[in-house]
Amino acid sequence: MSRTAIAAMTAYTLELREAATKLNQNENPFDFPPELKRTLVNAIVERRWNRYPDFESNALRGAIAKAYGLAPENILVGNGSNELLAAAIGTFVGPNTPTIIPRPSFSLYEKLVTVAGGAIVNVDVDPRHAHLPLAEMIDAASANEHAVVIVCSPNNPTGGILPPGGVERLLDTGATLLFDRAYGDFANDSLPLLHERLVTFSTFSKAWGLAGLRIGWLAATAGTAREVRKVKLPYSLNIVSEAAAVLALENRAIRDKNVSVLVRERERLAAAMRGIRRIEVFPSAANFISFRTERPAKAIFDELCARGILIRDISGYFGLANCLRVSVGTAEENDQFVAVLKEIA
Amino acid sequence: MSRTAIAAMTAYTLELREAATKLNQNENPFDFPPELKRTLVNAIVERRWNRYPDFESNALRGAIAKAYGLAPENILVGNGSNELLAAAIGTFVGPNTPTIIPRPSFSLYEKLVTVAGGAIVNVDVDPRHAHLPLAEMIDAASANEHAVVIVCSPNNPTGGILPPGGVERLLDTGATLLFDRAYGDFANDSLPLLHERLVTFSTFSKAWGLAGLRIGWLAATAGTAREVRKVKLPYSLNIVSEAAAVLALENRAIRDKNVSVLVRERERLAAAMRGIRRIEVFPSAANFISFRTERPAKAIFDELCARGILIRDISGYFGLANCLRVSVGTAEENDQFVAVLKEIA
Repeated sequence: MSRTAIAAMTAYTLELREAATKLNQNENPFDFPPELKRTLVNAIVERRWNRYPDFESNALRGAIAKAYGLAPENILVGNGSNELLAAAIGTFVGPNTPTIIPRPSFSLYEKLVTVAGGAIVNVDVDPRHAHLPLAEMIDAASANEHAVVIVCSPNNPTGGILPPGGVERLLDTGATLLFDRAYGDFANDSLPLLHERLVTFSTFSKAWGLAGLRIGWLAATAGTAREVRKVKLPYSLNIVSEAAAVLALENRAIRDKNVSVLVRERERLAAAMRGIRRIEVFPSAANFISFRTERPAKAIFDELCARGILIRDISGYFGLANCLRVSVGTAEENDQFVAVLKEIA
Repeated sequence: MSRTAIAAMTAYTLELREAATKLNQNENPFDFPPELKRTLVNAIVERRWNRYPDFESNALRGAIAKAYGLAPENILVGNGSNELLAAAIGTFVGPNTPTIIPRPSFSLYEKLVTVAGGAIVNVDVDPRHAHLPLAEMIDAASANEHAVVIVCSPNNPTGGILPPGGVERLLDTGATLLFDRAYGDFANDSLPLLHERLVTFSTFSKAWGLAGLRIGWLAATAGTAREVRKVKLPYSLNIVSEAAAVLALENRAIRDKNVSVLVRERERLAAAMRGIRRIEVFPSAANFISFRTERPAKAIFDELCARGILIRDISGYFGLANCLRVSVGTAEENDQFVAVLKEIA
């Protein structure tokens, strides 16, 4: 039978509804360019599908290293950054390891730490603040020897970021820091400097618009990457996804344009939402905006859905009673969302 | 810093050499048919790559369930069966869980159990026997309450299978059984009946020849699948691999032909190898054959490599001193291998 810790867990679920306007998963609304898709698949049909992918994904690790001024030894790639987060948590979190996690945050962290048997120490996030509670995180890290800190910045689902210098100050506590910058491109962040107690996670799912292909990567010192690699599964990136990510990096303008359009749209959307009475809009540096409603959030969620707009009900998260989250879509989608929300809020 | 258990581990590595004839990874020598590749990629370019895959991979779970006479609730799919093995081990193996593993076997099991903190109980495999040591496994399972047993049948890298009735007899001990039938198609096996303490792992990498796309699946009772799903990462199958597996199942003749050709070739290859003096050929029901050499295995491995034939040096595995493993290739590849081996053995 499953272990007690697993039996006590609830499954990660997602309300699956069909809607014409899909703003529920923080996806990029812009597809990968058709001509590049065609280039990629033409190359893929020539490959032998019966052969395993390259054991170390050297082509992609090299391309990422080059793009970010690192060495291939600093990079691991995986089947979405989720897989790498799981490997890193398996590497650093064992039974009773104090593991500091802001809450609310991406629910996968708690799930993975629970599987590993770690002792979760939550630090509460106030979604009204643009910054995550750094001082409280430092206190918690300092109070626990050999702590692991897991931070998502910008934080999903609230949108706040770690204040400038936050990574360095957290590392100064002696903690190991797992830093998830899945939404970092939208905050105009940069990859933190390498440090032996730091692992940084990035993804091609958001700014690059390749969520369907599941490609994530981590950056770490060569020694730390070597440790995580012991836990990570081999061959975790299939031949199509690896080639797509290499092609994407050769076409960096795609990412830059996505980011600039979506940041502009986020600001326009936030401004429009702030003009709606009876909702409180939280500051966000990501490609989504969370907000609190006066009317029951579930009712607003359902009414939006009935009007063909699917967003995310996050009211079940700690501290987010009556809150909803909308992904930044195209200008048309955002306008449509604002128009309906204005009516029903 | 990484946990003590991780620091003590050695990384899973693979000697990467280029060779014209690649018989080192138990790959299927036959590529997926070109016309089906083209059908698949034409469908894929029409999909939106910026959207996440279906949360539950319902299309593929449904197709597998239909093909094997089960319900979708009995199936989980993942990024290679490795990922599902990791999830199942995370579900059932916690700190000090007695975990019975024949040795030698697929090295990933020990790695994953070590990460989970389980207590490994090895049962030695004699590679000269066509059957895995069922009685010893039953003894070990009976001697340990709440044991987990991990069996690969046919066993990689030795080739032996669990004797008929083995699954049922292992379940009778009260143990949880993780049953890896990655090579089962080549043994003409069938999916064992569902049981709440049984999880069966299958793959599209071997008989189907889709190793490059990384697609695995597991079968379990709905309740057991639900537990493993709590540990498994969401969205683990990308849109290309999921669609490829669905297409493969609609073209079952591909698998059937691969299996019949490779089983015939295995028998032909084994017979030819048995005719070579100074090597001992182990019985195999898989798509590979392991053998012991009189001369140093490493020298033979190197000499084959110098002649353009890459096989696998397995002499570092427990009990396999001076042993090598060759994957069953095309008739031409097998002939070439036999001719060279005959010369240098």
